[in-house]
Amino acid sequence: MYKLVLIRHGESTWNLENRFTGWVDVDLTPTGVAQAQQAGRTLKAHGYDFDVAYTSVLKRAIWTLWHTLDQMDRTWLPVVHQWRLNERHYGGLQGLNKAETAKQYGDEQVLIWRRSYDTPPPPLAADAPLSQRSDIRYAKLKPEEIPLTECLKDTVARVMPAWNDTIAPAIKSGKRVVIAAHGNSIRALVKYLSNIGDDEIVGVNIPNGTPLVYELDADLKPIKPYYYLEEKKA
Amino acid sequence: MYKLVLIRHGESTWNLENRFTGWVDVDLTPTGVAQAQQAGRTLKAHGYDFDVAYTSVLKRAIWTLWHTLDQMDRTWLPVVHQWRLNERHYGGLQGLNKAETAKQYGDEQVLIWRRSYDTPPPPLAADAPLSQRSDIRYAKLKPEEIPLTECLKDTVARVMPAWNDTIAPAIKSGKRVVIAAHGNSIRALVKYLSNIGDDEIVGVNIPNGTPLVYELDADLKPIKPYYYLEEKKA
Repeated sequence: MYKLVLIRHGESTWNLENRFTGWVDVDLTPTGVAQAQQAGRTLKAHGYDFDVAYTSVLKRAIWTLWHTLDQMDRTWLPVVHQWRLNERHYGGLQGLNKAETAKQYGDEQVLIWRRSYDTPPPPLAADAPLSQRSDIRYAKLKPEEIPLTECLKDTVARVMPAWNDTIAPAIKSGKRVVIAAHGNSIRALVKYLSNIGDDEIVGVNIPNGTPLVYELDADLKPIKPYYYLEEKKA
Repeated sequence: MYKLVLIRHGESTWNLENRFTGWVDVDLTPTGVAQAQQAGRTLKAHGYDFDVAYTSVLKRAIWTLWHTLDQMDRTWLPVVHQWRLNERHYGGLQGLNKAETAKQYGDEQVLIWRRSYDTPPPPLAADAPLSQRSDIRYAKLKPEEIPLTECLKDTVARVMPAWNDTIAPAIKSGKRVVIAAHGNSIRALVKYLSNIGDDEIVGVNIPNGTPLVYELDADLKPIKPYYYLEEKKA
């Protein structure tokens, strides 16, 4: 039996301001740092340990991982950064807060974007200031691999190769894996692992900085529902 | 021509207390964090960028690297952790401050250990509390590879394979490399690259958190003496 731990990043500056963040690279708040540190203490207190860590190329997830590993005395673990673990790209909504979005697009339309599995928000222009088409961290990707918007279905589609090609093989090879990522890239993994339907997955909320545990069999099928680790000091 | 950047970690808690640290895994002080962040701002302001980072398995170097990369907006760069980049192992002196060491061993003996290239301090017992023989981060090494004490000559001998086998090939492949390490592992690299004699290298001091630059030719020979980057804001 394998255990897999998923951690959504701690509170970010744009979580706090209630803005759509997506691929915009914002910092953790002091609360977010504290959440990440608590996640590390909780994992340590429950006796968890890891051999390799996966994260996105966005610093709110990376710093969450770093603070978590530090509290576990595991700063020296290998860390693999994968753009495929990034947050869902929110297209033209990135940077807008809820009130601004509702004013610009109307409450009904915003509800559709938030609740629908396969309706993406309006795309960014490729040369928009918040577009990532010229961001050096994506320089090795084909331009068309760098999204200008995504629905959750799109996010699932680009997260899964990270799971199939690198993370699942690592787990099967016996490595104890932790993934620090984002609300929607974690939803993508939860949808796949727990076999959750398209309509249901959009209602699954992943709390910030809280270790989510899967216990998996030899074929990486969950042997029971995923659960969250109870807060505990090391 | 290649550029290589070496950074000694920022001030650690035991630097501040004037204790021999070696392989004991102590934290940065707030000053050490600020030095690391300044190093990142300075590198960015001078137009430096990197493709890969190397560091030790000790958190004062790792955190220095993380804070440096964060200020450069490069938290997502691949980081390679190598035990061979660790600080010189100070054997039985680890944990002692200067006054305690002088009291226990006498001023003259302490001077020999600090100034000599090839006289190691007394070894730790393999089962001493500060020994790393049972530290999980070294679990893949043969016990005899985990030092119980080192003179600088020993440190040079175990640092060089990291250079020859991984770092030098990375530079020659065109990757821009930064190394965040320790006073004596950096001395080892400086001794080799600048061809400094055994007697002279022990007098070369590497300041905390200050980017040291080598400009190297195609054979990785320096085309001029190494230099430090002037402090500069991004």
